[in-house]
Amino acid sequence: MSPDGQNLSQTASVDHLSTQPLPNSQKIYVQGSRPDIQVAMREVSQSPTQLQNDQLEDNPAVRIYDTSGPYTDPAIDIDVRQGLPMVRDAWIKERGDTQQLAEFTSKYSRIREQNITLENLRFEHQRKPLRAQAGKNVTQLHYARQGIITPEMEYIAIRENLALEEKAMQEAAKHQHPGQNFGANTPQFITPEFVRSEVAAGRAVIPANINHPESEPMIIGRNFLVKINANIGNSAVTSSIEEEVEKMVWSTRWGGDTVMDLSTGDNIHETREWIVRNSPVPIGTVPIYQALEKVNGVAEDLTWEIFRDTLIEQAEQGVDYFTIHAATLLRYVPMTAKRITGIVSRGGSIMAKWCLAHHQENFLYTHFEDICDIMKAYDITFSLGDGLRPGCLADANDEAQFAELRTMGELTKIAWQHDVQVFIEGPGHVPMHMVKANMEEQLEHCHEAPFYTLGPLVTDISPGYDHFASGIGAAMIGWYGCAMLCYVTPKEHLGLPNRDDVKEGIITYKIAAHAADLAKGHPASQIRDNALSKARFEFRWEDQFNLSLDPDRAREFHDETLPKDAAKVAHFCSMCGPKFCSMKITQEVRDFAAQQELEQAQGMQDMADKFKSEGSEIYHAV
Amino acid sequence: MSPDGQNLSQTASVDHLSTQPLPNSQKIYVQGSRPDIQVAMREVSQSPTQLQNDQLEDNPAVRIYDTSGPYTDPAIDIDVRQGLPMVRDAWIKERGDTQQLAEFTSKYSRIREQNITLENLRFEHQRKPLRAQAGKNVTQLHYARQGIITPEMEYIAIRENLALEEKAMQEAAKHQHPGQNFGANTPQFITPEFVRSEVAAGRAVIPANINHPESEPMIIGRNFLVKINANIGNSAVTSSIEEEVEKMVWSTRWGGDTVMDLSTGDNIHETREWIVRNSPVPIGTVPIYQALEKVNGVAEDLTWEIFRDTLIEQAEQGVDYFTIHAATLLRYVPMTAKRITGIVSRGGSIMAKWCLAHHQENFLYTHFEDICDIMKAYDITFSLGDGLRPGCLADANDEAQFAELRTMGELTKIAWQHDVQVFIEGPGHVPMHMVKANMEEQLEHCHEAPFYTLGPLVTDISPGYDHFASGIGAAMIGWYGCAMLCYVTPKEHLGLPNRDDVKEGIITYKIAAHAADLAKGHPASQIRDNALSKARFEFRWEDQFNLSLDPDRAREFHDETLPKDAAKVAHFCSMCGPKFCSMKITQEVRDFAAQQELEQAQGMQDMADKFKSEGSEIYHAV
Repeated sequence: MSPDGQNLSQTASVDHLSTQPLPNSQKIYVQGSRPDIQVAMREVSQSPTQLQNDQLEDNPAVRIYDTSGPYTDPAIDIDVRQGLPMVRDAWIKERGDTQQLAEFTSKYSRIREQNITLENLRFEHQRKPLRAQAGKNVTQLHYARQGIITPEMEYIAIRENLALEEKAMQEAAKHQHPGQNFGANTPQFITPEFVRSEVAAGRAVIPANINHPESEPMIIGRNFLVKINANIGNSAVTSSIEEEVEKMVWSTRWGGDTVMDLSTGDNIHETREWIVRNSPVPIGTVPIYQALEKVNGVAEDLTWEIFRDTLIEQAEQGVDYFTIHAATLLRYVPMTAKRITGIVSRGGSIMAKWCLAHHQENFLYTHFEDICDIMKAYDITFSLGDGLRPGCLADANDEAQFAELRTMGELTKIAWQHDVQVFIEGPGHVPMHMVKANMEEQLEHCHEAPFYTLGPLVTDISPGYDHFASGIGAAMIGWYGCAMLCYVTPKEHLGLPNRDDVKEGIITYKIAAHAADLAKGHPASQIRDNALSKARFEFRWEDQFNLSLDPDRAREFHDETLPKDAAKVAHFCSMCGPKFCSMKITQEVRDFAAQQELEQAQGMQDMADKFKSEGSEIYHAV
Repeated sequence: MSPDGQNLSQTASVDHLSTQPLPNSQKIYVQGSRPDIQVAMREVSQSPTQLQNDQLEDNPAVRIYDTSGPYTDPAIDIDVRQGLPMVRDAWIKERGDTQQLAEFTSKYSRIREQNITLENLRFEHQRKPLRAQAGKNVTQLHYARQGIITPEMEYIAIRENLALEEKAMQEAAKHQHPGQNFGANTPQFITPEFVRSEVAAGRAVIPANINHPESEPMIIGRNFLVKINANIGNSAVTSSIEEEVEKMVWSTRWGGDTVMDLSTGDNIHETREWIVRNSPVPIGTVPIYQALEKVNGVAEDLTWEIFRDTLIEQAEQGVDYFTIHAATLLRYVPMTAKRITGIVSRGGSIMAKWCLAHHQENFLYTHFEDICDIMKAYDITFSLGDGLRPGCLADANDEAQFAELRTMGELTKIAWQHDVQVFIEGPGHVPMHMVKANMEEQLEHCHEAPFYTLGPLVTDISPGYDHFASGIGAAMIGWYGCAMLCYVTPKEHLGLPNRDDVKEGIITYKIAAHAADLAKGHPASQIRDNALSKARFEFRWEDQFNLSLDPDRAREFHDETLPKDAAKVAHFCSMCGPKFCSMKITQEVRDFAAQQELEQAQGMQDMADKFKSEGSEIYHAV
């Protein structure tokens, strides 16, 4: 129920959501090989350059990878009670390998469904779930290995290329520095077949639950753009469903490629339904959190049956990837006893406690193949949880962490035997010079399955600024090959992030991810940098703002010093004032150089004329 | 004059300055080999750990390198009208190589001195300047090369070691990861002799103008802690003297190791005097800015004579290092014409304009030895300015930038022939994978003179967040060997930083510098991280706040979610709530492991007893 006690289905409306398009931005849809492949992206238009001769030079619109879904398209009516359009529905159905179930498989789902006190809270237009037909496997990995290029794969290829033609991509790539791509092999133009081959090899995943047809296809792999994840979720302390939906919308507005719903409070079942139905990006969860709630927070009381029912509950709601701490083994737990900060992963500590209490091996490990059977029936991707990740620099890269990593590698192979998609979670807290080893160990022991890290933080002394301390490590590991970066907000270690913190965390991580794309030399990743730099040099202030990651802040900061509109077209900036601007002087230098060149050319011509007039003889008689 | 028109000498008072000690922090002074070497640092005390058996375990106080000078010492009365105590005065005088002048050498200084309309504005207790006696050289490099260990060098050794004894340093170093120090050779314990030898080799500088005896000695070199610089300065648009002094105090409070005064407005002569007299850290300037003001902003009108007088004016006020764009040569200027952002350095563009207007070589280059003569008479350090640094990624590491770098290397050798200290300024905007090349080229071509970079920014698309985009590059280049990082604030490219922006920029750069120290394995740099992590694990919230780079923000963020005082001693945190805390569970795991160990030991004992009772024979008859 929303905090004021009203019926959520009545009150949840577009008013509470961030649906304005970003400034000077237009949502465009680029059609693929068939009319129902409509790849959404954002196009930022620019003003022309005023040339010296009073003529205007056009500046092309810049395309931007857009995670915000229909929310920033003024042509689409958003109604969170209806949920988003189902862009993938037809693709899933036409494959003919799924069945619509008559009721939810999960006992818990059915109990919640039958509870009339939850009616005001419930997403009204709940659908019946899909599941693979008996004996069928509906994962993108399964299709990829059979040589099938799905519409999802084609969508992704167009999206990653910013819908540029092959020639345009190659031309754009000329205007950026060649990257230094660690052990990877990104082509200058991403083809649907390349997407398929990377998925087939396990080097990339497409999180795409068949029960989340609302999500726009995206890919996580080191030969593609680096992605970022934003965590949302109420805790025991605060939050309403509506707030959680808005957090998801807000996260995708600023560039969250996936959203993890880490809710742990009441009604997380209902909250999740609202989030998934309204999310244009894949949703991840940590199912053990909800399972623990079902046993009243007593880790020892967890059972495989309760966990299994939770997996199916969430699978049929449409969660796209599950964090599963299946590699946190009993024998690794004592390796953490001498650490400064022991076990800091929530999932890891729950499983560690369970293992010790029962003197038994982690049931996520012993039931791993049972879990695979569930994953492949809905196409849920494994995010193998690093339950033993270091919680401080001192604990980085230790025996416990790397022992678990090797077990993750074993589990990856098992998941692949089931054609289930896998990526691997990583730390955490690691000093800069030890970051690369994390990437290398992961690639080696996890057979190139995509890596997904939280930061890592490169120092422990910066509470309040840990988005940044972790963003350094994130940028570096992204460059080294990490495929997705889990954001950290300024509130990390201290409290719950608010709206501003979420945005701050996301922009920080967009910077890290984009910096990594540039360093890797991802095709055409420098187009936006070059356009913004040109706008900056030419004092096209509005274009500079609009091309930036956060146009609102850029404009606001400029306004603080020079609030007048006239200043937005001024050929100087606030730092130096009108007489003293280096960019202004440079323009003069450039004009001068051009003049000099002209004179030299004229001088050459004069010489040539003289030479000719003198008879065109090289050696004159003295 | 202060903005309200009052007499500054009357109004400037401690009330406007940030003089509170940081929480739970005490200023300590550690004596060197003589009573007047009193090395200031900050000591943060901690609360004890509550052990299971209800006993308390003490946690040692943590020492922190402290740039805030007397301002955070409640025992010292601050009076900005008097200036700070002159900690280095006796050391300078006892060397017997300086003379007190009867009047200022600079014509401009004398004109300002005689201008009665400036009386209200002027620092009241202005001293007569010192200069080297004829034929003497008063640089720390000169002393170092003669084998002299100055009190400054000893002060620095104690300061860099956090005043720990050699054994304590070696013990502390055991509790951190060995670093990966690029081409350097830091000992585990910094001796005064090591300081001397690094200065003598030109690998480190001690900016210490004999006319700035108020500054506490510090060193810039890659085998020492990475330093950061904060820029302050009014522009044509805003600011008062008082604000500028407060900005300097504010910058040093949060960790600025040096401050550059980049003022360009009116009364910069008087502003500078107030800043230098009250600054506990070295002050840097870009003298060409003021010289340009003297010719009404017309670059072509600059002359060597005006520039020379400006150097001497600032030298006799006590500026510790000068940015001099002496390597921005005429023939390099056209190399920038094809760039996206041309010349973005203010100093570089001024000199480029001068060169082109006169068709003559840069007068800073042609008069370089004349400049050296001035530098060595006051011990001012060269900060060779990178006038042709790239202003965007596309322009990074180009012909213009590296041509200038090689000329800087030539000039370094010339300065060294004069025993003048030198460091080298660097970019700017550089993608991550090209950062290392900047460091390598600099080390090679500038003969290991210390490097001092602005960022570099690793992407151009983040106006409003450029402190962070540049902080990534700064952390990396610091690790690779850059000795000092020039901070960038969130207002970079957009407007003038306010107080909050300055703090945000400084903390961001402290994180970058500290991360670099950790990665390089600077001795004992991990002490603070380990202490904070232990406090975090043990729910000593107050200690966690107090040990952080910004205790105020850490506390404020915690308060936002859990405002009550009780929450500061709660054995859980806001993220998970009381039942669901991974750190709490870890403690249980640890207790369990201890119990298990005990049981194993008991089991071993039982076995041993059994073994003994059975006659201690290994092989029993069947």
